Amino acid sequence: MTTPTIGVFDSGFGGLTVLRALIGRMPQARFAFLGDTARLPYGSKSRRTIAKYAAESAQFLVQEQGAEFLVIACNTASALALDAIQEAVSVPVLGVIEPGASAARLASRTGDVLVIATDATVQSHAYTVACRAQGLRALEKACPLLVPLVEEGWIDASIPTGKVTAEVIRIYLAELTADAAAMGLNPDVLVLGCTHYPLLRPMLEAAVPPGIRVIDSAQAAADAAVHSINGRLTRSSEELPEVPPNTQLRCFATDSVEKFERLGSRFLGYSVGKVQLVDLGG
Amino acid sequence: MTTPTIGVFDSGFGGLTVLRALIGRMPQARFAFLGDTARLPYGSKSRRTIAKYAAESAQFLVQEQGAEFLVIACNTASALALDAIQEAVSVPVLGVIEPGASAARLASRTGDVLVIATDATVQSHAYTVACRAQGLRALEKACPLLVPLVEEGWIDASIPTGKVTAEVIRIYLAELTADAAAMGLNPDVLVLGCTHYPLLRPMLEAAVPPGIRVIDSAQAAADAAVHSINGRLTRSSEELPEVPPNTQLRCFATDSVEKFERLGSRFLGYSVGKVQLVDLGG
Repeated sequence: MTTPTIGVFDSGFGGLTVLRALIGRMPQARFAFLGDTARLPYGSKSRRTIAKYAAESAQFLVQEQGAEFLVIACNTASALALDAIQEAVSVPVLGVIEPGASAARLASRTGDVLVIATDATVQSHAYTVACRAQGLRALEKACPLLVPLVEEGWIDASIPTGKVTAEVIRIYLAELTADAAAMGLNPDVLVLGCTHYPLLRPMLEAAVPPGIRVIDSAQAAADAAVHSINGRLTRSSEELPEVPPNTQLRCFATDSVEKFERLGSRFLGYSVGKVQLVDLGG
Repeated sequence: MTTPTIGVFDSGFGGLTVLRALIGRMPQARFAFLGDTARLPYGSKSRRTIAKYAAESAQFLVQEQGAEFLVIACNTASALALDAIQEAVSVPVLGVIEPGASAARLASRTGDVLVIATDATVQSHAYTVACRAQGLRALEKACPLLVPLVEEGWIDASIPTGKVTAEVIRIYLAELTADAAAMGLNPDVLVLGCTHYPLLRPMLEAAVPPGIRVIDSAQAAADAAVHSINGRLTRSSEELPEVPPNTQLRCFATDSVEKFERLGSRFLGYSVGKVQLVDLGG
């Protein structure tokens, strides 16, 4: 009986927290990790683009690296592209969302859970759907500053840089818990719905109100993957003015037109109007 | 005499600050703006990738949109891909680096200038080179949190979210001015080397030490473009353990292998070792 090669995929390197959890549980296994860093970050891209990128990445791991089991160690790709990946390859594929929701169900007594994640993961409402399937009510919040703060290494709360991160976390969690209270929710679990967040776990645990447990999707996914792989082996194997009327302005974007339209005007000082999607074949 | 179509290109939408400045100066002109948002951000990518993406984007503006003059409203692309863009198209191409350095020369009496920008722009040392050509000594610092803070909209210093940004700016500028003092520099100019930073100008002006003027590359580039276009018209127109010895780990990335190797280990908890570059044709 041999251990299969396990392919682990992420848009960047945050998924290494999942790989770390897998290595801790299966130190004898073979792993192939792919970070699609050329096309990073997925969090700001459309579902269509993420699905194409993720499917190509999954095929690389299966066809060229011989992966017999895939773990999608990326919340965004799990949220938006799990179906596309499962269609693109013939091996079992596990994302991080459902294991996170299952772990939340085991941890929650009230049935109400909070989820923090990237913009794209939250907009997909994948955690809300997965939690509902577990009989849970979920409230999600996008926390886009946390990834760059982790990548900047501002994660030590005892020094000024880390105090900035602690304040960002305080602001995000205050908004989230206020929203939850306004909706009549009584949450007792906070799910970390991004593979960068485990590096902030001590700060997050210090910041959550008493009575709320922190659940890590990366650990939950690694647990689920080990369970599934062992099972297989057992079975044998704001309103803005228009641009000045005399200005002829055409705006184009290769993706994320909605984000461009929403945020672009803040930079331009005028409404950017309708942004056209162009394909550069990238 | 007709006004030429001016193509304005950025990896995202920050370059709209340059377009804004251009529109203010040439309200009658025709503009075509392209944000290569599918492949955003350029700031974390390799020179080779940025050059390919930027050249494709420039060709789109010239060949498909009829641009007769190109403004590269992206410090990263200007720093890393200006030559590639100039080779790819036959129209005049203006970046933001040289105009920023020229404006710094006009503003500086001491000849020592500070530059803040993205990681990739700083690593290129394009501002140092351009400033040296102007007889200036430049000290550059990467400030990677400023772009996501702007994109999160935390730009009002009177409320808690903006106070976070003000503290981030204070930390970055304190590091930069301490480094400058240690090098014996006496800077009197701070160049904003990223098109997102104009939105932080009031906070940056409040944070710089007395006697330091803030210079905006976006405005400087718009001035230079107008000058150049009018001229044409006039002429007629951290040490880590290895992975456990029984673990077989292969890491792949589609780009930015150095960044993956440097930062990835923090997530994995082990050295990621040698990361292999793979091309998915993206």
